[in-house]
Parts: sequence; C-alpha cells; structure tokens
Amino acid sequence: MGRLLRANGIGTTVLDNDSDRVDILRRLGLKVFYGDATRHDLLEAAGAGNARLIVLALDNHERNLELVHTVKKHFPNLTILARAIDRPDAYALMDAGVRHVYRETFDSSLRLGVEALRLLGRRAYQADRAARTFRRHDDEALDELRAVREDREAYLGVARRRIADLERTLLADLTETKETEAGWDAETLRAEILSRPAPPSDPEPTES
Amino acid sequence: MGRLLRANGIGTTVLDNDSDRVDILRRLGLKVFYGDATRHDLLEAAGAGNARLIVLALDNHERNLELVHTVKKHFPNLTILARAIDRPDAYALMDAGVRHVYRETFDSSLRLGVEALRLLGRRAYQADRAARTFRRHDDEALDELRAVREDREAYLGVARRRIADLERTLLADLTETKETEAGWDAETLRAEILSRPAPPSDPEPTES
Repeated sequence: MGRLLRANGIGTTVLDNDSDRVDILRRLGLKVFYGDATRHDLLEAAGAGNARLIVLALDNHERNLELVHTVKKHFPNLTILARAIDRPDAYALMDAGVRHVYRETFDSSLRLGVEALRLLGRRAYQADRAARTFRRHDDEALDELRAVREDREAYLGVARRRIADLERTLLADLTETKETEAGWDAETLRAEILSRPAPPSDPEPTES
Repeated sequence: MGRLLRANGIGTTVLDNDSDRVDILRRLGLKVFYGDATRHDLLEAAGAGNARLIVLALDNHERNLELVHTVKKHFPNLTILARAIDRPDAYALMDAGVRHVYRETFDSSLRLGVEALRLLGRRAYQADRAARTFRRHDDEALDELRAVREDREAYLGVARRRIADLERTLLADLTETKETEAGWDAETLRAEILSRPAPPSDPEPTES
C-alpha cells in the first residue's frame, strides 16, 4: 500500500514497531518511524498534524481501536482508513465512527473467486462484473448485518435474504448478457451454468 | 468466495473443521462437509474426484502444503488455487508446484491504496489503472524474488530495482494521461502530485 502510494508520488510515512520490518522498509527507501503508532507524540513527530489521511493496519484489534480514538481526539481532521481483521473487527471499527473500513482478506477472496470463474470457462468481463456486483451487495449488507449482529437468528435471516438477492441479481445479469448476445432463454442458460462452463464455441462478445 | 461461485451457478462444496462455521454455512444453504480437509477419504466423499478445481485456504501453513501434496497425489487432474498467508507462504506453495497462488491480504491492501488515491483527489480510472499496473508488476516480481529469497542482500537489491521500475512506469502513465488531457509538462506535474492532489477545476476526462 505504501509502495503504491509512493510510486504515485504521494508522500507516505510509515509507523511500525517491528524492528526487522522497519529495517527492510527503510532500505527499500520508505520513510519509516520505529515505535508504537498509538502514541500521540510519535504520530505528531511523524507528521500526522499536516497529513491528509491515515491508514490504520495494526495486527491487534484493541490497539487498532485505541488508535482510532487517539486520532479522532488529537487529529480530528485526518481521514481514517482502517484495515479490519475480520467481520467483527469491521463492525467495531464502524461503531467507532470509521467510515472507510476494509476487511483484510475480502478482496483477495473475491479475486480468487474471479479466477475460479475464469478457470471454469466464464469470460473475464463477466467474472469481473460478477465480482463488482458481489462487492457492492456485500458492502451494503455489512451495515444491515451490523445492526442485527447480537441476534444470531436475525443475523442469519438477513444473511440468507441478502444471498438470495445477490443470486437473483447475478443470474439476471448473466441472463441479460447472454440473451442479448445469443438469444438463449433463461431456463436453458441456468441449466447450462449449473452443469458445465460455457462452451468455447460461443460467439465472442464485445468487452463492455 | 463460495458465495460468489454459488451465486454464479457453480456447484460448490466446502470442507471445514470449525464446527461453528460449518453450522453457519449450512444454514446459509451451502453444501458443507465437517472434518479435516487434508484427509484423502473426506476429499473423495466431498466429490474431489469429479470436481474441476479446488481452493485451498487452511489457516495453517504446514497443513496447506500437506493438502497440496494429497491433492497432487490422489486427484492429479484437479486445478489447485491456493490462498497464501504471506510472502514466505506464497513462495513455499509455488515451490510445491501450485500455479495459482493468492496472498490473502494483497488485494485488500491494494484496494485500500486505490481508495486512498481517490480520497487524495486522484480520479477513479487513474487509481484503478495504477492498481492494475502495480499488481502486474508485483506478480512478475514475486517469481524473481522467490529465486533470490535466501540471500537478503540480493533480495533487497531486486526489490529496490523492482520498486524503481514500478515508479517509473506509474509516473510515465500519469504523465502521458495528463499531457494528453491538459498539456501539462512532466516536471510541473510531478511537483504537483507531491505537494497536493489535482485541483477539482480540471476538465473531466472521458473514462476509458
């Protein structure tokens, strides 16, 4: 992440309390402070007072939340982006008022799914579109699920309904694309998908 | 991942030895086997003999590698996709002959970077393009770094060169886009990016 930003010409400072990692990052040319990122004075020294945004990615759930509070108190103008370890962690960060939360394994999981779809014969643009739809649905669901997470039955109910919605949307997407392309009907297509990947003899659709 | 595949009409079976998770996944309508996924007989019962591909995502590095060997021995026709915990894990999986390896936090990290670029004023299509370039470079670098990973100095040397290459590519991309759009020169642009995000008064480019 720091490498992507720096490579894009954005001044980036890293705070890390793993001395070996600090050594490596410094030798790769990044500006790195060694120490506990939850310390207000260290954040100040690292330039948090003049920064536009801060990315929180501590390995420990409680420390990450502590850092949210420190930043909100001492640097209220900093936009916070936070990496969440899992769903419960994401909910806690959202409860603490963080608007930009990223579950750390979510996108790789999604990419793995996209690659699986492609290996099973789905076309690249279809797989990508399915992933975008999935992510949008999942982001929306996250807020709704957060509200009912203390009640397991209600939680599962919402999750089930969300999954059904998503399946309808994705199959509708697929059907619509295919019908436009080749005039197949929805029933034939559904069986087609469930039983095997699209045959290679299909006319190649235009990327859109 | 399972949800994305199922929502796309792909028959998906999960093997998991976390009984609570098995319960939840089943109640969400997924086909789930409870037990140790490294067991050959359980893989067989779950249908590995007729499947097209298998996704390995165990939490434990050694178990994941063990599963690679079991699959390669008993189900040689199955395409393996494997989630790696980190770089060393990715290298070990590649050494074991797995061609499709996905570092579990890589894509979320990249998306976090894309969002940061957008919040700093970069346009969506530029941020997305930078991420694609970054990923392609990083995938290529992974193989090269794997070859020299036992030698720390050589490793850092390759990493530094790769980062410099990437920075050149990304800045060239950016310059090219910008020059076409507004006729700015490269020097002005570089200072611009380092000091502040692009002003909102820019002419809006056409998404391409």
